[in-house]
Amino acid sequence: MRLDDLLGRAVLVFDGAMGTMLQARGLPAGACPDLWNLERPDAVVAVHREYVAAGAQIIETNTFGATPARLAHYGLADKCHAITVAGVRCAREAAEGRALVAGSMGPLGALVEPLGELTFDEAYAQFAAQARAFAEARPDFIIVETIADLNELRAAVLACKDHAPSIRIIAQITIDPSGRAFTGTDPETAGLVLQSLGADVIGFNCSVGPDLLVDAVARMARVVRVPISVQPNAGLPLLTPDGTTRFPMGPEEFAAYGPKLVAAGASLVGGCCGTTPEHIRRLRAAVEEMKPTGQPGPLSETLGLASRTRSLFFVEQNLPVVIGERINPTGRKLLTRDIKEGAFARVRDEAKKQVAAGAAVLDVNVGVPLIDEPAAMAQAVRVIQGAVDVPLCLDSPNADALEAGLKACVGKPLVNSFSLEEGRAEAVLPVAKRYGAAVLGLTIDERGIPASAQQRLEIARRLVAAAEAYGIPRHDVVIDPLALTAGAQQAEARETLRAIQWITDELGVRTSLGVSNVSFGLPNRPFLNAVYLTMAVTMGLSMAIMNPLEERMMDTVRALRLFLNRDRNARVYMQEVGPKRLVHTVEEALKIAAGEGRAASPGAAGIPAAKGTSAADDTSAADGARAADGARAADDTSAADGVRVAADTPATAGTPVADGTPASTAPALAAATAPAPDAGVPGPDPAGDALGRRL
Amino acid sequence: MRLDDLLGRAVLVFDGAMGTMLQARGLPAGACPDLWNLERPDAVVAVHREYVAAGAQIIETNTFGATPARLAHYGLADKCHAITVAGVRCAREAAEGRALVAGSMGPLGALVEPLGELTFDEAYAQFAAQARAFAEARPDFIIVETIADLNELRAAVLACKDHAPSIRIIAQITIDPSGRAFTGTDPETAGLVLQSLGADVIGFNCSVGPDLLVDAVARMARVVRVPISVQPNAGLPLLTPDGTTRFPMGPEEFAAYGPKLVAAGASLVGGCCGTTPEHIRRLRAAVEEMKPTGQPGPLSETLGLASRTRSLFFVEQNLPVVIGERINPTGRKLLTRDIKEGAFARVRDEAKKQVAAGAAVLDVNVGVPLIDEPAAMAQAVRVIQGAVDVPLCLDSPNADALEAGLKACVGKPLVNSFSLEEGRAEAVLPVAKRYGAAVLGLTIDERGIPASAQQRLEIARRLVAAAEAYGIPRHDVVIDPLALTAGAQQAEARETLRAIQWITDELGVRTSLGVSNVSFGLPNRPFLNAVYLTMAVTMGLSMAIMNPLEERMMDTVRALRLFLNRDRNARVYMQEVGPKRLVHTVEEALKIAAGEGRAASPGAAGIPAAKGTSAADDTSAADGARAADGARAADDTSAADGVRVAADTPATAGTPVADGTPASTAPALAAATAPAPDAGVPGPDPAGDALGRRL
Ligand SMILES: [Zn+2]
Ligand SMILES: [Zn+2]
Ligand SMILES: [Zn+2]
Repeated sequence: MRLDDLLGRAVLVFDGAMGTMLQARGLPAGACPDLWNLERPDAVVAVHREYVAAGAQIIETNTFGATPARLAHYGLADKCHAITVAGVRCAREAAEGRALVAGSMGPLGALVEPLGELTFDEAYAQFAAQARAFAEARPDFIIVETIADLNELRAAVLACKDHAPSIRIIAQITIDPSGRAFTGTDPETAGLVLQSLGADVIGFNCSVGPDLLVDAVARMARVVRVPISVQPNAGLPLLTPDGTTRFPMGPEEFAAYGPKLVAAGASLVGGCCGTTPEHIRRLRAAVEEMKPTGQPGPLSETLGLASRTRSLFFVEQNLPVVIGERINPTGRKLLTRDIKEGAFARVRDEAKKQVAAGAAVLDVNVGVPLIDEPAAMAQAVRVIQGAVDVPLCLDSPNADALEAGLKACVGKPLVNSFSLEEGRAEAVLPVAKRYGAAVLGLTIDERGIPASAQQRLEIARRLVAAAEAYGIPRHDVVIDPLALTAGAQQAEARETLRAIQWITDELGVRTSLGVSNVSFGLPNRPFLNAVYLTMAVTMGLSMAIMNPLEERMMDTVRALRLFLNRDRNARVYMQEVGPKRLVHTVEEALKIAAGEGRAASPGAAGIPAAKGTSAADDTSAADGARAADGARAADDTSAADGVRVAADTPATAGTPVADGTPASTAPALAAATAPAPDAGVPGPDPAGDALGRRL
Repeated sequence: MRLDDLLGRAVLVFDGAMGTMLQARGLPAGACPDLWNLERPDAVVAVHREYVAAGAQIIETNTFGATPARLAHYGLADKCHAITVAGVRCAREAAEGRALVAGSMGPLGALVEPLGELTFDEAYAQFAAQARAFAEARPDFIIVETIADLNELRAAVLACKDHAPSIRIIAQITIDPSGRAFTGTDPETAGLVLQSLGADVIGFNCSVGPDLLVDAVARMARVVRVPISVQPNAGLPLLTPDGTTRFPMGPEEFAAYGPKLVAAGASLVGGCCGTTPEHIRRLRAAVEEMKPTGQPGPLSETLGLASRTRSLFFVEQNLPVVIGERINPTGRKLLTRDIKEGAFARVRDEAKKQVAAGAAVLDVNVGVPLIDEPAAMAQAVRVIQGAVDVPLCLDSPNADALEAGLKACVGKPLVNSFSLEEGRAEAVLPVAKRYGAAVLGLTIDERGIPASAQQRLEIARRLVAAAEAYGIPRHDVVIDPLALTAGAQQAEARETLRAIQWITDELGVRTSLGVSNVSFGLPNRPFLNAVYLTMAVTMGLSMAIMNPLEERMMDTVRALRLFLNRDRNARVYMQEVGPKRLVHTVEEALKIAAGEGRAASPGAAGIPAAKGTSAADDTSAADGARAADGARAADDTSAADGVRVAADTPATAGTPVADGTPASTAPALAAATAPAPDAGVPGPDPAGDALGRRL
């Protein structure tokens, strides 16, 4: 078996630090390390050889700073190509076929907008220049690393995909001791976004030691199906009295974390700053006998959307997801005027108000006639992402506007929409795939909107197939079976509800609906909309595009979540907690699932009205109090982690887990997705129950 | 094959009039015809022989007036037994094995309470006396005939079942030229109630000619599975100038209606007043080659409840049925006091108000401690049936109170409730079966209320089996999976919803729920109740026990019926018509089904928002107008027929019928229950779609 066939099946070991090793060989402080690929290739090859001799199975080229922008600090901007190609040559020479070569691509050293001055296109051009050199030199991987800004990572991954399309990409984010990147991105969000963008391996490097990365690896492992890599520093750097930096963790201590990182989900391990060939030798020995867990994350087949900092997974406990519809100029004069004039204060305001009211996603539509809609869409995305931290739903019939929004959007948005109308899928799907977005498909074909649920289902099948043909996985496809006006198409109001169930049951995808159209022309529209929303959610609707500022609609969502047992102890409904947060952190959701396993088990089922169960009642009250405490504890940590996920995935879950499941590790989450044989609430068809079969 | 094996498989012909034939043989006007069984058996036998010679396959004994009460007019009250036994002997002698013998049992000649002075028990005793004689004489049938009062018919059928349990019962009601009995009972209600009481053959005789009975037979045929018999007079009687009565229809004209009656659904035909052996000879010849339609009525496997005058079938178009819950003293001081004092004006008032608000069934609970609850229940039933014409739901934990209510209730009520608690099914089910009631089973077993949907389903299976073991058919069983308090048993609020679906899908029975309990202890209860009701109906709930005076709940029901396409053109929702009637006549429902077949067919599906469908839109608008006209026309006739049924039955229907189906005959109704292959809205599982699979 060739070494690169082992990816994901065996634990592979990277090398360690390069710069300090070159300094030890005479590289002056302040000199350009990458230039040695051309000037002192013997030294570079020698360092590589030390790591290969120590057992490294993948060695990184000495090209970390070889983008033109970084080389410009040394007046070497025009040497990007030569240095990069020479770096790969040095590594190949040292590897002698005993190690794979990963072409290193580091940060630009300047922040990308909106954090800094560099435009996204400028960043992209920098990475593209180095990627073209790698495309020629052909390392086994390009490793994009030591970058903390998710937007900069996006630019790098896109540039590699475009300019070195046949070379596998390892994308590594750098996080703080807090567990997040300094820009706020958490491990799940990094995993979700980078995987959607097409990275082949995702992970972490630098900044902190292995002790602080075990949990980050475990969190990322929940959401990705690709291998995870991790290259810690030799501990947190200490400044010594003489002004130099010292890394406190010796080889033995460092290597002791190897098995923990692998157990948490990593299948590629290595070292970053402060590590030496001895660290790597010990590390290789520590993990030599281990296998990667090899499990795709329990949420890796679940629809997830993300802002820059947070992820929202469409697990049962978080449904229905409210998508705020108010950033849309249709029928709104002031908003239309503002967008036409390029004034986005009202857009920002609508974003904040909707999120405060409970919207978990915001629809963004800037469709004003005769404007530069792509520019307006990009600007709206930037303004909204500067104001709130929820994922976006980019809404336009204009494919160019969608592309501009996708490029501007940091995170994983939903593209609204495509259909089977002439040319629409072909225009939208490749762009959505390129930027790693989920897609919303409308059940419209060449002939328009069909009459029946059956025809809607047939179109939905074709929509899913079309998305899959462009490489968008099925779980990233959302189907909108279109709510029509009950006043004019009364039978179809029911057909749409049926279609929700059939599409959910057969295709296993999430569904969305803009419900307000259903009441057009009828009296008491808000009331009718709330009833129809209730029916749709009962039939399995996953998300509603609606106005979160309408109290009646939000009250309805809260009541639905109460009755569907997705609002544990009615906390949100009772408004016992401050903000009306309608989605759960993964810890909350795990506690809910575990608590439900208890409450619903035959022994503990308490029914006050029924005879002979009062003792059980006392038990369940105690359980309730415990669960509430647990949820509050999870709340406290949620500010730090900020991930909104829940325990069961649509593909396999549904049955609450049994008691005693640990609540904060990846294996626990995996356990939550397997049916618990002794759970009290088994359905006749536990497998079909995955999406709740409507409930 | 023996003659009586042909019942229901061949058309059988009865004899004709007896009294006029005896008069022709010398019976003096004003004399007791039945006495001739003892005094002139030769003449009686001779008349029977004429009919047998004419081709009659069933001859009726000369015992029509031989109940003690009727014989008392001639001072012969003590001759009931002798005359009845002799009547059977005469008929057997004449039949010589070539005809079956039906023992005739006529009306008492005095009205039963509440219409007259005779108590139900007194009427029962009269019929029981004659039934005991028949039990000894053993005719092939007892034929209860020429009775217009459904309550008197109930007494007669119960007496025959009790005192001649092995003899088959033919029960015939007498209707006016209006198509109803003079007491208001319509043909469907007569069929529904008499079949539930256990009559083996049901039909009509006397009062009108065959021309006016074809439609009545067709209407009854919709709802019964037993054979239908019909014995018209020889036309409507004319008073001649000399003061005698003349029947205008000659043998040829009379016999010409035979095939029409058989085509309408009758399988036993004969003559009543004014018919002669020649009428019967012609009739036999006219139907000799015909087969009975042999089809059980399309609504015969559908839950139906009835007042004295009207029937309510639980077909999809009529769901959810609102059961008014307000006649219940729990927590109501004034109502408690009234019931304790035997004052029922408040009960009457609650009945009227609830029906005016849209209740289609009324729950009757008089559970006040320390009262004679059976007496109170019977009195409440009488008072309510005197005030409104909707079916009742008799609600008590006291089996004696249920029995008293059942005896007092004219029509087909629902018994609320039985369960698997110790002794409860054994106490309730035999009584319910005896009085022909439907039964509501609570999912409670020996251990109380279970926690999970699965356990509720398992109990529901046992409830259905228990009812069937007592001879109550499955479609007369309603299951209540019990809504618990979401504040205390949050997971179970969802389990109850799941149970509705599972019980409906697996057992094919109707479900009921008292929803208000779900919100106990939570803020904004009416809002929560409406949301939960919406979820339950979406999951397939058939009926809700609720407060129809709560506008929000009734608005919710109306909105649900709109979105489920059960309120054609939103007529009720839009309040375009006066009373907010929430159930349909059979004609309305047929028009809805036919109209829907049009509107939902792919060609006519109009979607204004979609391209290329504006022409189709015009079509569907025209269809809508036509359907509205049709519905209004049906409205006009509904005062006359008053039957509340709809087109599709839970057992087989679901797919709308195609266009062009005639809308007012029994075959049309049968057609409506078969899937239309070209209908526009086929499901992936048309069979499973019968109950709408929740929709
Ligand atoms: Zn580092
Ligand atoms: Zn007659
Ligand atoms: Zn007669």
